[in-house]
Formats: sequence, C-alpha cells, structure tokens
Amino acid sequence: MINKLISKIQKTNAPIVVGLDPTMKFVPEHIKSKAFAECGETLEGAAEAVWQYNKGIVDAISDLVPAVKPQIAMYEQFGVPGVIAFKKTVDYCREKGLVVIGDVKRGDIGSTSEAYAVAHLGKVQVGDKSYYGFDEDFATVNPYFGSDGVNPFVKVCKEEKKGIFVLVKTSNPSSGELQDRLIDGKPLYEIVGEKVAVWGEECMGDGYSYVGAVVGATYPEQGKVLRKLMPKTFILVPGYGAQGGKGADLVHFFNEDGLGAIINSSRGIIAAYQQEQYAKYGAENYADASRAAVLAMKEDIAQALAAK
Amino acid sequence: MINKLISKIQKTNAPIVVGLDPTMKFVPEHIKSKAFAECGETLEGAAEAVWQYNKGIVDAISDLVPAVKPQIAMYEQFGVPGVIAFKKTVDYCREKGLVVIGDVKRGDIGSTSEAYAVAHLGKVQVGDKSYYGFDEDFATVNPYFGSDGVNPFVKVCKEEKKGIFVLVKTSNPSSGELQDRLIDGKPLYEIVGEKVAVWGEECMGDGYSYVGAVVGATYPEQGKVLRKLMPKTFILVPGYGAQGGKGADLVHFFNEDGLGAIINSSRGIIAAYQQEQYAKYGAENYADASRAAVLAMKEDIAQALAAK
Repeated sequence: MINKLISKIQKTNAPIVVGLDPTMKFVPEHIKSKAFAECGETLEGAAEAVWQYNKGIVDAISDLVPAVKPQIAMYEQFGVPGVIAFKKTVDYCREKGLVVIGDVKRGDIGSTSEAYAVAHLGKVQVGDKSYYGFDEDFATVNPYFGSDGVNPFVKVCKEEKKGIFVLVKTSNPSSGELQDRLIDGKPLYEIVGEKVAVWGEECMGDGYSYVGAVVGATYPEQGKVLRKLMPKTFILVPGYGAQGGKGADLVHFFNEDGLGAIINSSRGIIAAYQQEQYAKYGAENYADASRAAVLAMKEDIAQALAAK
Repeated sequence: MINKLISKIQKTNAPIVVGLDPTMKFVPEHIKSKAFAECGETLEGAAEAVWQYNKGIVDAISDLVPAVKPQIAMYEQFGVPGVIAFKKTVDYCREKGLVVIGDVKRGDIGSTSEAYAVAHLGKVQVGDKSYYGFDEDFATVNPYFGSDGVNPFVKVCKEEKKGIFVLVKTSNPSSGELQDRLIDGKPLYEIVGEKVAVWGEECMGDGYSYVGAVVGATYPEQGKVLRKLMPKTFILVPGYGAQGGKGADLVHFFNEDGLGAIINSSRGIIAAYQQEQYAKYGAENYADASRAAVLAMKEDIAQALAAK
C-alpha cells in the first residue's frame, strides 16, 4: 500500500491528503435541510448530511489527490449512525481509487491493539468465514504503550499489505508537554522517531517503509531533525492551513527524491467555501470551492518544493 | 459520577470492575450457534453472539459489582455491527444501574478530542436538538498530546458530571519503553501522574477527582509511588488475573480510607468457564462461572485489603 500511495502521489503530482473531518457547522444548509427532511433532526439526519457532504467533496477532488484521511472522531460524535457514515465514506473513497488513511489514533495493550488492527486494517474470523471490519488502507497509531501496542498493527499490515502512521510529534500547541521532554538529552519525540525507524526496517516497500510517522506541520524544525532520523519513513504531516502550517515550512519534511511526506489539510479544503477567498463559489457549490482549494494547495507545495 | 462510583463500591463492598471484552473464542458454542442461525455466520451474527453473551454475564453479576468496562476495540473488530453491540451493551448496563467505563483510550488534538469527548460522554448538537452518541459514564484517555488533548474531555465531564481515566502506567510488558524513561530523573509516568493530579484538582467530587488515572496491576511498585503522587486521584487498575496481577499486589493502589482504586478483570471473569477452576459449570452455565469468579475476586481483594 505504501507503493500504491507513492505511485498515486507521483501520478497526481500532489503529496497531499484531504482530511474528511466533517462537523455540522461545515455542512452547507441545503445538504442539512435535505437530510433532516429525509431522516429528521436526528443522529441519522446528521450522519446522512455528513455522508452527502463528503460524497460531494470526494467527487470533486478524487482526480487531484492520492488520498483522503477521515478522522473517525468526527463520525463517532454522531454515535452509531455516525460510524455508519464513516464506513460509507471509507468504502466510497476506496471505490474511487483513493488511498484511505483512517485517522483513528488507536493503540492499547497487545491483545487489544490486535483487535484494533483487525478492526481497521484486517479481517476478523467469524466461524469459518472472515470479514473486514472498517477496511481502511492505513491507520494512525498512538505509541504510548511501546512495541506491544504497535506490533499487532505491523503484523496485520504485513498480512494485508497495508500501513500505519505512528504519532511522533503532534501538531497541537501542547504537544511539547510530554513529547519535547528530554530523555538522555533527546526529546521524547526523537526517541519515538528512532523506534518508528526500527519498527519500519523490516516493513519495507520499494523505497519507503509502510510503518510511517505523524509529524505536525506546525513544528518544521522538529520535522527537519526527524526527516534525517527516519530516512525511509513516510511522514504524514497534519496542520497545514487552518492549524497554521505553510508550504514553505514543509520542504524539510521531504527527502531529496521529492518524496517521503504527505501533507494533510482538512478544514482548509472541506470548508473552503466558508473562507473569504473562496466565498464566491457559494455554499451550493462548496465542492467546487474545495477543488479550487486543493489546486491552490498543490501549487503552494509544488512551488515550495521547486524552491528547495 | 465519581461520587456514584464510590457509593456503589461501598454498597457492593467491591472495588471491582468487570471488563466486557468479548472475543469469539470466549463466546460459548450454544450462543454462537443460535446467533449464526438467526443472522448468519456474518459480522451481524458475531455481534449478536457478543451481545447475548454480554447480557448473560451482566445479568449474572450486576448485583455484585459497581461497574463494567467494555473495551471498544473488541467490538470495533466486528465493524459497524460490532459498534452497535457496544452501544447496546453500554445502554443495557446503565439500565441495570452499573457505572459504565468506556475503555476507548481516545485522545487527539483539541478540536478532535472535543469530538471524542462528545461522542463518548457528551451530547452533539444536530440542528436545534442535541443527542448523546455513545453515552458512557467514564472514558479512558491517552495523554500523549498533553493538556490540549485532555482538556476537552474535562470540559464535557464538568457539564455532564461524568469522568475520565487518563493512561499513566499501562499494564503491558513493553509499557516501560517510553513510560519508564527518565526525564529530569523522574520516569515519564510520574510526569504524567503529576499532570493528572493537576488536571484533577479543579474537578473534585466529594473526596476524589473525576479525573482518574490508569495504572496497571502488573506494576505494583510504580502503583505505590503513583498512589502517593496523586492522593485525590481514583486509579483504574487493569491487569488483575489473566495479565498476572494478584490481590496482594494491589493493596498499595488503595488509600488509607480503603478507597481510591478500582480493579479490573476481563478474561478472568467473562471467560471463567474456560478455566479449570470453574470448568464444572460448563459452557451452558458460563454466566454462573463468571459470578463465581467475581465472588472469588471480591474475596481475594477483601482479604488483601484486610491484611494491609
């Protein structure tokens, strides 16, 4: 799957992933009205609105980008109907040929991580048969449990030819509270980065490992260090746009081959129509605004990489 | 909710939580056959089997214990039908008057943690109405993101009078890889423990905070240190029984008032009928075996506390 992701990045010329993180305040009124008319002002109605909203965006951008990253929290907030909308979104994006990174940030003790790995990447045994649960292509994983919590994901990735991105340095303001603390003179995120590099060594695709890392766009200096520390690790970089990261900040997340990183933008793309810059599209044409925002992001990153 | 949990612990005289972590190999044949006959050898069939299995256990033990802790990974592995079984289990246990600790180990950047907090503890706004998503009483939270990732849970807990347990020192063998690393001479888990104590200060119930901590039964020495470091923090202690923790190891997780900790057992209770000691009950009477195992665990912990 890491090979597929890279080949799609090269084909689209876009090291970009669109975060499908819907909240009700992003969903245009006409979609909400229709969904509420059909399903009521209920969790089912909200889930239907979210799904239709996503579908519009995916239809508008699927030829431009290699991957999407639905954030499961945004679906879980609508309970069971929301989780159904998550699954519909995952399936639809995969049908469209997009690589789906399930942003689930799971991680637990070994036997429990095994269940999460099966849930999101693998197949569960039911009697004589086996079934995929959510069936994403990649999942994000929290490293707090150490190897026990990560290995079950690696095992399933090997079986299924899928991948993971392990949290190393997260994009949020308080990420330093634990992640920047020094251990033998090195910040915790470097310790985790070294582990990711080791976990990834025996999980190599053609040029990169299918055990990747998450490093926030909001920490470009740390990104530079981590890039060197994990040369064969693909880095998923959230925090572009709405969280403050810019194209020029991101060049050091890439290797000399122009690969090695994929930049996520969520709000900046999916709610583009709410920004002054794209307001001219109007809420009815929100998906066109998203398409324009993807094109602008591609250009920003391409320019930054060209100037590197 | 922390007051309710403590009052139920006192009433049942059992600082015990039963982990409802079903896997297909725990579910007795007669339950599987019936569920597969009704729903097929499918994810729906597996979810029905898990739900019926849980219901049997809950009916057999709900008068003995204050709380249950369904581990959501075990349900997610069965995809959407599994998540439906999780929600049915949560609702059923709450109807039975049990405190439900959703073992979800969520945590993310602020806006995403907000969605997780709403999903598991709070209400989501849909048009003019608002709805609970999964509606557990407590949730477990991963601290890797720092305060940003925890504060949204605390906010929802205040609004809803619910609670969280933040991972401090986990029960798995490799938990030390990151959690034991020294920062200014102190292991990371102590740094997290200190943070939990601070987060908990402004979230006090009558005697304990509703911001609790997770500390594994398998690390009794660390439990002793953390108990002193977080005197007002309720500690959720997994790892009893199947993972190797014993009653005598656990006394130091409790304060002098005999409170301050709740011990979880999962496999040891829910799959008791598969152990030699309880084999006489037979698979048909698996729930009676679970009841006997709860009684034995109560006795083990009561004796250990009496001998303290």
